[in-house]
Amino acid sequence: MHEQENSMSHELPQESVTVIGLGAMGTALAGAFLAAGHPTTVWNRTAAKAEPLVARGAVAASSPEAAVTASQLIVACVLDYGTLRAVLTGQEAALAGRTLVNLTSGSPEQARELADWAAGLGLAYLDGAIMITPPGIGGPDATVLYSGAPDVLARHRPTLAALGEPVDLGPDAGIAGLYDTALLGLMWSALSGWLHGVALVGADGVRAAEFTPVATRWLSGAVAGFINRYTAQADARTYPGDDAGLDIHLAAMEHLLHASRARGVDTTLPEVFAGQARQAIAAGHGADSYARLIEVIEK
Amino acid sequence: MHEQENSMSHELPQESVTVIGLGAMGTALAGAFLAAGHPTTVWNRTAAKAEPLVARGAVAASSPEAAVTASQLIVACVLDYGTLRAVLTGQEAALAGRTLVNLTSGSPEQARELADWAAGLGLAYLDGAIMITPPGIGGPDATVLYSGAPDVLARHRPTLAALGEPVDLGPDAGIAGLYDTALLGLMWSALSGWLHGVALVGADGVRAAEFTPVATRWLSGAVAGFINRYTAQADARTYPGDDAGLDIHLAAMEHLLHASRARGVDTTLPEVFAGQARQAIAAGHGADSYARLIEVIEK
Repeated sequence: MHEQENSMSHELPQESVTVIGLGAMGTALAGAFLAAGHPTTVWNRTAAKAEPLVARGAVAASSPEAAVTASQLIVACVLDYGTLRAVLTGQEAALAGRTLVNLTSGSPEQARELADWAAGLGLAYLDGAIMITPPGIGGPDATVLYSGAPDVLARHRPTLAALGEPVDLGPDAGIAGLYDTALLGLMWSALSGWLHGVALVGADGVRAAEFTPVATRWLSGAVAGFINRYTAQADARTYPGDDAGLDIHLAAMEHLLHASRARGVDTTLPEVFAGQARQAIAAGHGADSYARLIEVIEK
Repeated sequence: MHEQENSMSHELPQESVTVIGLGAMGTALAGAFLAAGHPTTVWNRTAAKAEPLVARGAVAASSPEAAVTASQLIVACVLDYGTLRAVLTGQEAALAGRTLVNLTSGSPEQARELADWAAGLGLAYLDGAIMITPPGIGGPDATVLYSGAPDVLARHRPTLAALGEPVDLGPDAGIAGLYDTALLGLMWSALSGWLHGVALVGADGVRAAEFTPVATRWLSGAVAGFINRYTAQADARTYPGDDAGLDIHLAAMEHLLHASRARGVDTTLPEVFAGQARQAIAAGHGADSYARLIEVIEK
């Protein structure tokens, strides 16, 4: 009996989904839905892009209207918000009562504007930001941030989980895009910081393949630990420097600047955080923790 | 019989160790040795610093000579290399045949010079860099980098593991200090990148406590994955941009600059990596991956 129930639940039909936009990312999204067993309808302005997905079991819609009406859940990932509006214009009546999950990149303002437009149509709208490149879709490091309609995310979470772990950022449709921008900034900072380190140790004969395992362990362990510790300080606007004050950080930054110059490594990046530290110290905050620099950055 | 062997091995005396220098870090080191059951001798120029450790079972040496001759293994953590040389001068004969693990912060050049001096005395020398603040010593995120004498590290690894996970960086005594500097640079880059993100989402009403869990997951997952992928590219000096080329990165960086300006957030940090990307693109590398920027940084 128990086994039969399991077997029956496995045979439940998976939710149908329509994917609009078949660039590298849209193709990866549709592929992940197909791999998870969802009946998948696809549409792209250039129809030929659909062929490899059709070979894997997708249905190619012949028009935007056919795409919209094929599924209750519509996932869009096109070049930009203007392109999406152009595709959906004329489909307003068909969209009413359905759900649009928009994974197109754009600004928080564009997301909020589209959410307002959808609300006027009776179209449930969820904005999302994909935090992985197309080859990573559906893999262990894939995260997709959503904001705009927590109830829509709750309803479609099992389907959307095929793309990557869904993270709910609440009801403001603009927040997913803002997180996307903020997280990319963190990524570029970390990547350039890592490359600076590779250049520094490389000057003394160490390969990136030797340095990187130590660097990623450091980033995921101690550095993530410092970030966690400073989070409450940033929110509380008090920065007790009992682990290490900015004076101590700046002294060590000067060693980094010196070691970089001695090896012909560009100092533009370390000059930024040394400059932030000097500014906070000049304002009398040398005994405060690194988190104090939030007030330099916010100005 | 098996149990008796286990019990006997537990009763083996732990290696004796001398700790020279009882600032915040030296005190944490001595405390970790005591907690692990090592007979621990301590010495500090200002003797009163030893009292809390003596209360926990340490022996306070009355002189540098008494400190040096108390243990085969001597761990030093003082203000700087000059201070250490001043403490050890006059103890050359007593040092011969012993092992010095120097965890004092300094430059690669200072470490190499001290290693040469030790070699002349018949003193086994290991240089180390502690990648955690004093409260973290002995904890799960504690890593200590060592270079200079791999055989010394192998011999004393069980004792040194009481401080944090020992990482062997090979025979060049200067490398541990250089890694230290490079890893701190990575830390400051990541911390300032995280603070930039906190400022950005904070302008739209998101607290650091909401942003940080997503940010640290991103850093430890996807960003560490990108670093791993780019490691082989940095060593091979070929940068296939099949995941995302610098042209695509720069377009997204412009969004970050725009979103930052719109919220009154300082753009000094994002201007650095945008500038690096523009420089590489101007040189014709717009289709290459982010790892191409190593060649901008090395100049």
